[in-house]
Amino acid sequence: MNAADFPSKPRIAIVGTGALGCYYGARLAKAGEDVHFLARSGRAALVARGLRVRTPTERIHVRRIPVYASAAEIGPCDLVVVALKATTNDALRSVLPPLLGENTVVLTLQNGLGVEEPLAEAAGAGRVVGAICFIASVRTAPGVIHCTFPGLMEIGEFGRPAQARTRRIAALFQKAGVSAAVHDNLEARRWHKLVWNVPFNGLAIAAGGISTDVIMADEGLRTLARRLMEEIVEAAAKFGHAIPRSFIDLQFERTAKIGGYRPSSLIDFEAGRDVEVEEIWGEPVRRARKIGAAVPRLEMLYALIKRLLGNRDAKRRRR
Amino acid sequence: MNAADFPSKPRIAIVGTGALGCYYGARLAKAGEDVHFLARSGRAALVARGLRVRTPTERIHVRRIPVYASAAEIGPCDLVVVALKATTNDALRSVLPPLLGENTVVLTLQNGLGVEEPLAEAAGAGRVVGAICFIASVRTAPGVIHCTFPGLMEIGEFGRPAQARTRRIAALFQKAGVSAAVHDNLEARRWHKLVWNVPFNGLAIAAGGISTDVIMADEGLRTLARRLMEEIVEAAAKFGHAIPRSFIDLQFERTAKIGGYRPSSLIDFEAGRDVEVEEIWGEPVRRARKIGAAVPRLEMLYALIKRLLGNRDAKRRRR
Repeated sequence: MNAADFPSKPRIAIVGTGALGCYYGARLAKAGEDVHFLARSGRAALVARGLRVRTPTERIHVRRIPVYASAAEIGPCDLVVVALKATTNDALRSVLPPLLGENTVVLTLQNGLGVEEPLAEAAGAGRVVGAICFIASVRTAPGVIHCTFPGLMEIGEFGRPAQARTRRIAALFQKAGVSAAVHDNLEARRWHKLVWNVPFNGLAIAAGGISTDVIMADEGLRTLARRLMEEIVEAAAKFGHAIPRSFIDLQFERTAKIGGYRPSSLIDFEAGRDVEVEEIWGEPVRRARKIGAAVPRLEMLYALIKRLLGNRDAKRRRR
Repeated sequence: MNAADFPSKPRIAIVGTGALGCYYGARLAKAGEDVHFLARSGRAALVARGLRVRTPTERIHVRRIPVYASAAEIGPCDLVVVALKATTNDALRSVLPPLLGENTVVLTLQNGLGVEEPLAEAAGAGRVVGAICFIASVRTAPGVIHCTFPGLMEIGEFGRPAQARTRRIAALFQKAGVSAAVHDNLEARRWHKLVWNVPFNGLAIAAGGISTDVIMADEGLRTLARRLMEEIVEAAAKFGHAIPRSFIDLQFERTAKIGGYRPSSLIDFEAGRDVEVEEIWGEPVRRARKIGAAVPRLEMLYALIKRLLGNRDAKRRRR
């Protein structure tokens, strides 16, 4: 596919109307793009009230948005933005096909490792592009998004360097006010993101529901966070992704500055929602094992979080 | 000191009237020994109603027991049985001296590593004997003990092989109906006990308050328990304590049989009581580090349990 195949005015489907789907969808719609939303729930509210996004510097209100209950109603698009949690990827096998045309690109905003593979299976590897989103945003009601940190987006192709279409997609988001950077090695960027996510999302849950400042102030946990980062860096290195040690120091410097931040996995855990336990902890463990990298602490964290999730869900079922 | 120095009818002080102090004290008193109890609380009930012990096969009632509020009232004894948790060992600096005569033996029933050292400091190393108690017993009210598994007691000298007095003390307990075995290497026995205690007491707390059957049924946690045991065995080996790998298998066979057991540390954790976090996890970590043994999972478990205890106590203070 050459750049010309990705149209200048693409038809865009946003699959999922959680915090990410609404945030990026609202920005694209406000920028005049042709955006169509697939919503599992809360459709009436989205139709009646549109989207409202509040950021530290802006208020965006999109009054009318096209909302659909099924992919078939939307039909083929040029760009499908997958903004559902990776824990729902099984459902995408039936959701994606009606959205696919000859040159449709499927862009996943999902977190962690191994999120492109199910999309590649469902839609074909050549269509898949990934975006790693550094953003803090919550949905406070259907279509109402509070974004405290708009951050940035790293975009790359699944299993190959950036293409002309990758740059076009990034430009599309940039035009909509999103800081979007194109990368040649998406997989390497995903390992970079794990360096923070594995310890801080993980210990926030495993150490009893604590925020990042508590981890930083606890000598045992702070050291443990560093050891977990080192395990990730060493496993990534075995896959050829060189992450400098200084990147670890940088994570601590940044985390010290954000104060008492509650990682998204902890918020999901406590709200009884799905947690991307396989994508953030399970898949890195499996890949490290496969390549012979020792990740004892990561393995332990994975086992503990899985059990804590199991306990939570068992308790909920007993109610 | 030769065997003759340990009298055939010793004056015995029991320091602490929790489950262990009451259980062994009741047995010794029922056997006609000269037992004196030092109680921090619940004295009136102990004086009024004595001790009641229920085991799977027996009911023991000791109607009248001498209970004291201070060590000075008891005065010098031949045997001082320390049945307080190791977390209270600071207090023993003032409790022990009035109980010591020329040849007094101080026998600690405490759990974990490093429990003899504070007693050696407070009373002199030559006096200190340790007993590792394999027992399941709870105090349901002051002086009322429910023992579901009387188990056995392993007795050894602090830092030297068994002496004549060690065997005399074991005989004293045996006469009172306690299975007591004498060992030449107390330290090695303590490492043996850690092989079970570290993973099962630890994961029961760290994985969200679960019983042993849940750990056994969870593949990730069961594997993790085995890795923790291997870390303990390898660290112990560096100290010259050879623990065969078959000992690990034996732990799993036994644990499979006891069903849904809630380890004592978990019960203490949930009841808001002190947990022997330094003796069971902290001290093994420090010793392993000192001798250059890698114990990444044990270190992680220690950090998590310390934080979970800290969270618990912080929450209690806020109430």
